[in-house]
Amino acid sequence: MAEETLTALRSLMATHSPPLDALVVPSEDYHQSEYVSARDKRREFVSGFTGSAGLALVTANEALLWTDGRYFLQAEQQLSSQWKLMRMGEDPSVEIWMADNLPNHAAVGVDPWCVSIYTAQRWERAFRKKEQKLIQTTGNLVDEVWTSRPPPEVNPVVVHPLEFSGRSVEDKLKDLREKLVNENTRAIILTALDEASYDITSYHIPCPVVHAYAIVTLASAFLYVERRKLSSEVSLYMQNNGIEVRDYSAVSSDVALLASDQLTPSSSAKETERAVSDNPGSYSGKNRTTVNENSTEKSINSLIWVDGTCCFALYSKLNVDKVLQQSSPLALAKALKNPVELDGLKNAHIRDGAAVVQYLVWLDKQMQEIYGASGYFVGSEVNKRDQLKAAKLTEVSVSDKLEEFRASKEHFRGLSFPTISSVGPNGAIIHYSPEEETCAELDPNSMYLFDSGAQYLDGTTDITRTVHFGKPTAHEKACYTAVLKGHIDLGKARFPNGTTGHVLDVLARVPLWKDGLDYRHGTGHGIGSYLNVHEGEGPHQISFRPAARNIPLQPSMTVTDEPGYYEDGNFGIRLENVLVVKDADTKFNFGDKGYLSFDHVTWAPYQRKLMDVSLLVPEEIEWLNSYHSNCRQILAPYLNTSEMEWLEKATEPIGA
Amino acid sequence: MAEETLTALRSLMATHSPPLDALVVPSEDYHQSEYVSARDKRREFVSGFTGSAGLALVTANEALLWTDGRYFLQAEQQLSSQWKLMRMGEDPSVEIWMADNLPNHAAVGVDPWCVSIYTAQRWERAFRKKEQKLIQTTGNLVDEVWTSRPPPEVNPVVVHPLEFSGRSVEDKLKDLREKLVNENTRAIILTALDEASYDITSYHIPCPVVHAYAIVTLASAFLYVERRKLSSEVSLYMQNNGIEVRDYSAVSSDVALLASDQLTPSSSAKETERAVSDNPGSYSGKNRTTVNENSTEKSINSLIWVDGTCCFALYSKLNVDKVLQQSSPLALAKALKNPVELDGLKNAHIRDGAAVVQYLVWLDKQMQEIYGASGYFVGSEVNKRDQLKAAKLTEVSVSDKLEEFRASKEHFRGLSFPTISSVGPNGAIIHYSPEEETCAELDPNSMYLFDSGAQYLDGTTDITRTVHFGKPTAHEKACYTAVLKGHIDLGKARFPNGTTGHVLDVLARVPLWKDGLDYRHGTGHGIGSYLNVHEGEGPHQISFRPAARNIPLQPSMTVTDEPGYYEDGNFGIRLENVLVVKDADTKFNFGDKGYLSFDHVTWAPYQRKLMDVSLLVPEEIEWLNSYHSNCRQILAPYLNTSEMEWLEKATEPIGA
Repeated sequence: MAEETLTALRSLMATHSPPLDALVVPSEDYHQSEYVSARDKRREFVSGFTGSAGLALVTANEALLWTDGRYFLQAEQQLSSQWKLMRMGEDPSVEIWMADNLPNHAAVGVDPWCVSIYTAQRWERAFRKKEQKLIQTTGNLVDEVWTSRPPPEVNPVVVHPLEFSGRSVEDKLKDLREKLVNENTRAIILTALDEASYDITSYHIPCPVVHAYAIVTLASAFLYVERRKLSSEVSLYMQNNGIEVRDYSAVSSDVALLASDQLTPSSSAKETERAVSDNPGSYSGKNRTTVNENSTEKSINSLIWVDGTCCFALYSKLNVDKVLQQSSPLALAKALKNPVELDGLKNAHIRDGAAVVQYLVWLDKQMQEIYGASGYFVGSEVNKRDQLKAAKLTEVSVSDKLEEFRASKEHFRGLSFPTISSVGPNGAIIHYSPEEETCAELDPNSMYLFDSGAQYLDGTTDITRTVHFGKPTAHEKACYTAVLKGHIDLGKARFPNGTTGHVLDVLARVPLWKDGLDYRHGTGHGIGSYLNVHEGEGPHQISFRPAARNIPLQPSMTVTDEPGYYEDGNFGIRLENVLVVKDADTKFNFGDKGYLSFDHVTWAPYQRKLMDVSLLVPEEIEWLNSYHSNCRQILAPYLNTSEMEWLEKATEPIGA
Repeated sequence: MAEETLTALRSLMATHSPPLDALVVPSEDYHQSEYVSARDKRREFVSGFTGSAGLALVTANEALLWTDGRYFLQAEQQLSSQWKLMRMGEDPSVEIWMADNLPNHAAVGVDPWCVSIYTAQRWERAFRKKEQKLIQTTGNLVDEVWTSRPPPEVNPVVVHPLEFSGRSVEDKLKDLREKLVNENTRAIILTALDEASYDITSYHIPCPVVHAYAIVTLASAFLYVERRKLSSEVSLYMQNNGIEVRDYSAVSSDVALLASDQLTPSSSAKETERAVSDNPGSYSGKNRTTVNENSTEKSINSLIWVDGTCCFALYSKLNVDKVLQQSSPLALAKALKNPVELDGLKNAHIRDGAAVVQYLVWLDKQMQEIYGASGYFVGSEVNKRDQLKAAKLTEVSVSDKLEEFRASKEHFRGLSFPTISSVGPNGAIIHYSPEEETCAELDPNSMYLFDSGAQYLDGTTDITRTVHFGKPTAHEKACYTAVLKGHIDLGKARFPNGTTGHVLDVLARVPLWKDGLDYRHGTGHGIGSYLNVHEGEGPHQISFRPAARNIPLQPSMTVTDEPGYYEDGNFGIRLENVLVVKDADTKFNFGDKGYLSFDHVTWAPYQRKLMDVSLLVPEEIEWLNSYHSNCRQILAPYLNTSEMEWLEKATEPIGA
């Protein structure tokens, strides 16, 4: 199967004009998304590797797959013998490999819709040395060989109510146009799904985003989306907000029109636009007036704004001299949560925390009934499995139960990503995704890691806990405690304004490094507000890699705190809370910079049994006891008596 | 005075061809040195600000001085009312300021010998927006108005013996030429003093470097230095090593010859060169042979290597297409100390530590005699000054005494930088340099900070301690302890290979940030081996700024660990040890990366009286007690009985 695909692809590469020495198949869809529809999983289809991140390269004789440290183990298991795994951070990067290993003047093909400007430019720089060329393929070669490609999804577009979004489309467009004016630009092309959706509306795939492009100019706005996804109410809502809906496929020709300043709204949209602009409450001001009065002159002088993540296909239609290639202003606008979003986020996390505790109570009881094991209680003797009990707990069946607890909560709309539910060695596969047929059973002698979250109308959640229902070894406890120390030390940090997440990353690693341990993933990502669970393009993150967009942490940003440790073949440990950046109440304020700290908004207990308390310093113990006390207090209204009894025992103060 | 200078400069700017809208006066000399000769202190002459780092900008109406956080306080005190202080990291950078504030098409003059390629290119990029121009001035305008400019120094060049350098000039040239071949270059231009000196020889200004340029090609080597500085022995040594000595001023025309591949050694040098190349033990191998056989063809194809710090004047003589602008290979070669250098470094630091302890013993006794105060002993009652005692201890007089102790040690050649000896509020001036006439007296009720070091033939030292001879306040103790915690936490860190100093920097700041405190300087710099005390261009450092040259820390690199806290008008605290990076002995080795840690090579006690022990965690106390125990053991052979008695009391275990 995989071999046939490679043969078919190589045949297409040879007959392509020009013939291709190599074909790149990225993970990303036409919007550079992290989570892609089934029909866009081209790299997975070609390579057999199912992880969310990676890149395949096919040459006449070789097939290589690059992926990052989260997926090394998984890729090793999934790749067939035709494929070679290239480990990001250890092996040469894909562009270095191509520049070094492909011949002089080599032609490297890629579907220009699947690759960002930033990536294409990086490759082209690497290609200069040997005069290699990046070729935009005519059509997508993978689609041509993929006979069983799934059909497009048709999910209806739904408007996200103002009571949850906290800021109207009108105001968001006004903010955006102010930024366009400030940067001397006349339009912006939005290709990221959470950006095209952010200012418009939303639905689910698993992130509540619309499969759409958008172009916003100083005077008009266009949304490119399959019309059949829009009800008449949603269409009217768009029209009322001065947004003209056009066919998804029209974006290509419209960007070409925009480049030559010939993109104009249809007359009906113009009417609406005028009505909006006459409304004194709407966007106006002198800049807008200037634009209307001297639109021709103005547009000649100004640029078109594209983010580096914009697809190379659209970028290629622009006049390079008239492009401002700069981070989209929406990345920061999305990252800075407004007060309504912050309230929603906190509330959603309380309901979510209650669901997680109910899950743990249920799981604890199940394990107790089957094995006599109990996770959060002190006793840890494991009995033989009671063969009479029919219940069988698998990674999938328990995660279904977790979803059930979440689904019972107000405003639930679905999971924010496929639940990671992993027993023992599977926990070491960082982004493990259990399959019903093959998944493992829960085991009272193994660690159990679950990383999961939900989309609620008022906020998106993401939490990881690791537990043991039997008697953990001293080594497992030492590792859990090192991860916990890093998680606490980062989570309670105070730092001056201007500090990036890259600078703070080490705080989560130092307790692991002390013993020569580490983890091969970043420590934290922003989390959208009823949007992508990963704010993939930041603009901030907590990572050992210097961020491409090195934006300091700022009050009202969200970020996760999720260090881990993974021992291949044995177990995985990860602990994750969502944090909100806030002003800190420090004793002094050196340099008048203002100091920041984090609010934890995730509420669920850590497992005391897994802690080696002798490795914790007093400040860490104090933090833990205070966090657990808050858990009890905050979750109480959402739990019944027996659940609260369990929680109180699970969170008894340490060292008391 | 300062006003007359500005007037004269502005007059020259107006009559320059083309007329200049602005003139930049950098701190650096023609070699981009950190420490410059008196006659090269142009920025100091123009602005009156004496700090080591800064940049002056003069326009028709304004005079601005940029400097970094170490010097804000000092610059405020020294700048006259004509000058405006621009705070680096807070105010716009100089290029942003020029781009924003100077008119369209403005002409900005600079002496191209005083500015690096890297800086000139950065400015030119910023100038594009408004089509401003960087003008290379004809001559140095400051020199024209500086009538009392000091004459050139004529210090003799001395050969640094192999027993201390550990690697012969022959071997160093061989290493360098291998790197030239690897990068397809045919020559390198060395302009940094410690690079031109590193492979050649050395003398003192205060760093043991020669005021020289060097050009090294695959087949020859040229040193540009004032010939009268070389004895006949040194001249012969050069000749024997295949290095042709030319006039300092010849570098300019020789770089132009090099660009057109016409730079050739004189015949006598060629003879020597041939002799060296015939010697089987010398540099040869296939690359060399190839070069000799096909020298013309080869040189057409290959590039000339310059570091970004090379002066813009020399760079301007090259064909840009034939330049490899890349970090000099000598930066890393210098940073990785060879075994002889590491031994020398450790030995030099032991003798230096003994001198520092002798100084503290002496100072303690003096203070006790005058005030009844005693720093390292527990008692801290301060008596009224005994008016009968004639002794008067000033910042300068005590630092002279410190120099005396150091000068009595083997291999001493001088100080490695002007001693910072500062009482109370002067300690808050980070790079304070006391003057005999105006300096403060030691005060038993104030903190005293001294930061100093020496050049020994076998190594360069740099140490800072802060002490109090009376009764420190709770606030002073809290601040001292926060600095100490950061110093210890960084100094005992373990980290995987590939970690940069930028990543570790935060470890020294976290204890300060907790209380809203911080310091406005980097945390650590490499230290040369009988060379510059600051390895200014790294290639590594420990800094909150992402390093321009982001080289990870590697075994056998040196780096200082020097956090601080400075309270304007009150006191300054800094603690500094020199560390050597080494392989760490960790329990595990996750990812087979190899883990690293530091060896402290500085030996002198911290002051127990200034510690608030309740703020230290057990690991920190353990580290302190172990360090102090090592101090006693290591310094014992160099101290007399009463000095050892003092040291033993000063380093009694904490919490014992």
